[in-house]
Amino acid sequence: MKIKHPTLLVCRKKAVRNIRRMQQKAKTSGTVFRPHFKTHQSNLVGEMFRVAGVHQITVSSISMAEYFADHGWNDITIAFPLNLLEIDEINELAGRISLNILVESVFVAKVLAQKAGAPLGVFVEIDTGYHRTGLISDRLNEIDNILSVMASSGVLHFRGFLTHAGHTYHAQSKAEILEIMQQAATQLKKLKVQYQSQFPDLMLSYGDTPSCSMAERCEDFDEIRPGNFVYYDVMQYYLGSCRLDEIAVAVACPVVALHPERSEMVIYGGAVHLSKAFIATGKGFQLFGYLVRLDANLYWGKPVAGAYVVSLSQEHGIIRLPKKEMKTFRSGDLIGVLPVHSCLAANLLKEETVLV
Amino acid sequence: MKIKHPTLLVCRKKAVRNIRRMQQKAKTSGTVFRPHFKTHQSNLVGEMFRVAGVHQITVSSISMAEYFADHGWNDITIAFPLNLLEIDEINELAGRISLNILVESVFVAKVLAQKAGAPLGVFVEIDTGYHRTGLISDRLNEIDNILSVMASSGVLHFRGFLTHAGHTYHAQSKAEILEIMQQAATQLKKLKVQYQSQFPDLMLSYGDTPSCSMAERCEDFDEIRPGNFVYYDVMQYYLGSCRLDEIAVAVACPVVALHPERSEMVIYGGAVHLSKAFIATGKGFQLFGYLVRLDANLYWGKPVAGAYVVSLSQEHGIIRLPKKEMKTFRSGDLIGVLPVHSCLAANLLKEETVLV
Repeated sequence: MKIKHPTLLVCRKKAVRNIRRMQQKAKTSGTVFRPHFKTHQSNLVGEMFRVAGVHQITVSSISMAEYFADHGWNDITIAFPLNLLEIDEINELAGRISLNILVESVFVAKVLAQKAGAPLGVFVEIDTGYHRTGLISDRLNEIDNILSVMASSGVLHFRGFLTHAGHTYHAQSKAEILEIMQQAATQLKKLKVQYQSQFPDLMLSYGDTPSCSMAERCEDFDEIRPGNFVYYDVMQYYLGSCRLDEIAVAVACPVVALHPERSEMVIYGGAVHLSKAFIATGKGFQLFGYLVRLDANLYWGKPVAGAYVVSLSQEHGIIRLPKKEMKTFRSGDLIGVLPVHSCLAANLLKEETVLV
Repeated sequence: MKIKHPTLLVCRKKAVRNIRRMQQKAKTSGTVFRPHFKTHQSNLVGEMFRVAGVHQITVSSISMAEYFADHGWNDITIAFPLNLLEIDEINELAGRISLNILVESVFVAKVLAQKAGAPLGVFVEIDTGYHRTGLISDRLNEIDNILSVMASSGVLHFRGFLTHAGHTYHAQSKAEILEIMQQAATQLKKLKVQYQSQFPDLMLSYGDTPSCSMAERCEDFDEIRPGNFVYYDVMQYYLGSCRLDEIAVAVACPVVALHPERSEMVIYGGAVHLSKAFIATGKGFQLFGYLVRLDANLYWGKPVAGAYVVSLSQEHGIIRLPKKEMKTFRSGDLIGVLPVHSCLAANLLKEETVLV
């Protein structure tokens, strides 16, 4: 296959291994594995999960749910606060698959109770410390009110409590990440104790790649929803969630210019391919990705030592690299970049994805 | 028109006014106006330029050139270092439209001279201080070598010298931005003097929105290629290139959650809609956009005072806003966000663009 412009390479072997490892951890813990498909948004990659025996998935928008429903997935949680403007689409989808949504306010619960037209599973979203969305876990009054509004509807079925511990991404150590997971478990289990007699089947659903990757087990939760682990990326490597050789994606980019006088190489591969996500390295530069060499089969090995993607404009990427490495490249070569945030790169390159 | 998910609203009136103003400046200066279409990548917006009398355009990739050629644009400069892997596509395109490309090394010139199969205009790219791409202007030996390689080919036509003064984006003042433009002019005009006897028609082509917006005139150059000015954005406002009421795009986003306890509102509108581009405000937060109210016609006025998009994840945006403003919003409302970088937002929302 001749690649001529920025393209997302997905290493099937690494991705399958990443899937199997997380699936095994969930199984050992007796926990439902409901991976988040927002990372790849790809039916090709979805098929790898299906082959592994996965049938329940998570997405982050209604359009993503529609896409996967159209590809035969029929048990989907939309882990995003309900968008009331898309209630017609929700009803249509709930009429043909088993659909779960999130609610975090009485106002939304009331509108939903009026407008829901098909059976819907509802998770109450709990904020266990990330402070992005969800109810603080001690606001039992509000939770009670949401549950009583839902009880008044014939089609809304309370499924349990769901949280996303996204603050692990700001943590400084593995210990801190595991502590965040533990705090989430403590808060959710308290809610389980509180509501289990009334709702014996209620589930505790937990999502987050760093903590699910680092924890030995995850039996505190009834369900886990990590997503990024299928690909991983340089950010996850920095956090300690994965090894470099577990990163299952690289963005193939043509080399278009060499500037040995400043030890820089210019690639066709910019913010519209890799996204503007970066890591503040604390070493005087921002890191937008690692350079890897691609072999004839488009496989890659270790990153080139001392080579960093240090800047991105819309279509250009600048890679700083040692002079002796520079000499081995020329314009017209195809190189790979391990992205900082694989979800954003995959979103940008949805139409330009190749399994290798 | 009922908008239900993140959508790029383009205010036709403001965009047309932005086009007319820049076009008038070029005309007054006796300079060719070859706007950069990477900002919008949209045939709808291209039509506004065509109606205004624009027939020469700039793009930053071969696929963008193909898209606009398919929509009837037949004089295009690809202002990006030639990607040798796409030489077949270049030849195909050069066979049907008037196409200009960039070269900045003898190596690429040689390969091009061997492989070019149709008449091609070639600009030599000069680095006037941005240090992204291009030859430093005093490297006359290398320029001579490129020109002599080109002369050996029957189809390569030297068009002149081209620069992009992207370092204006790092400038601290209007004076500094105009100084950068002046320095670029000085360097390019020296090259003109050097090569004009040999190439009487050579052009000096200059691109960059901040300086072209701020300069009264641009007669130092034979051609200008600004792009972002058609939309502008919060970054350009920060730089001083535009007024807030000249920003011609807003991203329409549904409100999905309110958190008065921390003065934050959550919108369906994240990094996959607005991009991760931000401004370091120096006030303790990163700015990803301004909040505007949308009226029934999807027009907007001034940003809500004290309201800032302070954080983005893949699909979520967090807006911090004063408590009294918070009270006027509820879940299910549609709001607008003035983006920090309109080119990246427009790229992400290409399929979700509406003229208002």
